[in-house]
Amino acid sequence: MEQQTGIARLAAEPRLSGAVVHNMTVYLAGQVPDDATANAEAQTADVLRQIDALLAQAGTNKSYMLTVQVFLADMADYPAMNRAWDAWLDTRNKPARLTVQARLADPAWRVEITGTAALPPLLPRPGGPNESQWA
Amino acid sequence: MEQQTGIARLAAEPRLSGAVVHNMTVYLAGQVPDDATANAEAQTADVLRQIDALLAQAGTNKSYMLTVQVFLADMADYPAMNRAWDAWLDTRNKPARLTVQARLADPAWRVEITGTAALPPLLPRPGGPNESQWA
Amino acid sequence: MEQQTGIARLAAEPRLSGAVVHNMTVYLAGQVPDDATANAEAQTADVLRQIDALLAQAGTNKSYMLTVQVFLADMADYPAMNRAWDAWLDTRNKPARLTVQARLADPAWRVEITGTAALPPLLPRPGGPNESQWA
Repeated sequence: MEQQTGIARLAAEPRLSGAVVHNMTVYLAGQVPDDATANAEAQTADVLRQIDALLAQAGTNKSYMLTVQVFLADMADYPAMNRAWDAWLDTRNKPARLTVQARLADPAWRVEITGTAALPPLLPRPGGPNESQWA
Repeated sequence: MEQQTGIARLAAEPRLSGAVVHNMTVYLAGQVPDDATANAEAQTADVLRQIDALLAQAGTNKSYMLTVQVFLADMADYPAMNRAWDAWLDTRNKPARLTVQARLADPAWRVEITGTAALPPLLPRPGGPNESQWA
Repeated sequence: MEQQTGIARLAAEPRLSGAVVHNMTVYLAGQVPDDATANAEAQTADVLRQIDALLAQAGTNKSYMLTVQVFLADMADYPAMNRAWDAWLDTRNKPARLTVQARLADPAWRVEITGTAALPPLLPRPGGPNESQWA
């Protein structure tokens, strides 16, 4: 079927898009670590960097994050995940977060994260940092 | 980074917002029981009360619920969860629900629930019950 | 409470709606196989057919799929799930997907899938395949 208007699909992989944009909202696929040999804190920081990159590609950033769902392979990694989270979090713009334990597709992955973000409003604020606009 | 326009963030906790509002939609964080010593039915009722409170803070209510995701620490609590669910559910306005088992951050929690709700339409209906409007 | 305007609730079951439509977006409930005796690939194909039916009822189709979350009772079924996925996927319009393992409500279910889809844009494109419009 042809590509549909009103929807942008980014970071294509064989079975999924890394992010999909519709109605001023960015929907992320589950993001997993590139280096599965790293520890849980480093894997989380890696995943959050990938999220930053996808958000940038969509024309937004973590200050527009709406929701985050964290899946930990082992809940014992909760403090390690939170250390990376606290280093990444924009404390003025905290998303609604959920964290549960779940076995992931690759047993070496300690964490998988998904979520949603808003696009910046259509009217740029003069002098504001978010004048670029996804179209 | 400064707070972004077009997004409201409610019920701030150190690492997350309890709810985030954007584009006429309320996104909840994972809600967990205040009293982790209660049984699964009471924990579920407790969590649903917290959801009601967050929705009220956002200017909406359970009749506008769009989706609910229920994470049970033990699927054996499914009937107990459903008893609290049935007592809470607005049967004229049932959300799209999903229930799976997942280990939660605190082993004493039997249930964690997240979901989304709509804001009431911008034009109040004369005499209708939803004239209050989040702005 | 009365039914709320601006929200359509489809495929009612006692405790949930099979799909809810709001703000140009369709939210699916967790879809489970009708035939729990089938293998993981057949159960996945079954669930995807049910998703197609719900999307049709909402006035949209899989080419507008935004997100998909796959919950596998056993991650060992990941290849079998993907065979059904690959046969179903619209490769021009791939959603943002997440797959994790989780125990499901019925131990015979191998897979449960939920997700979201866009409604077709309000203005039909002349000659386009998506002129029907949910209202």
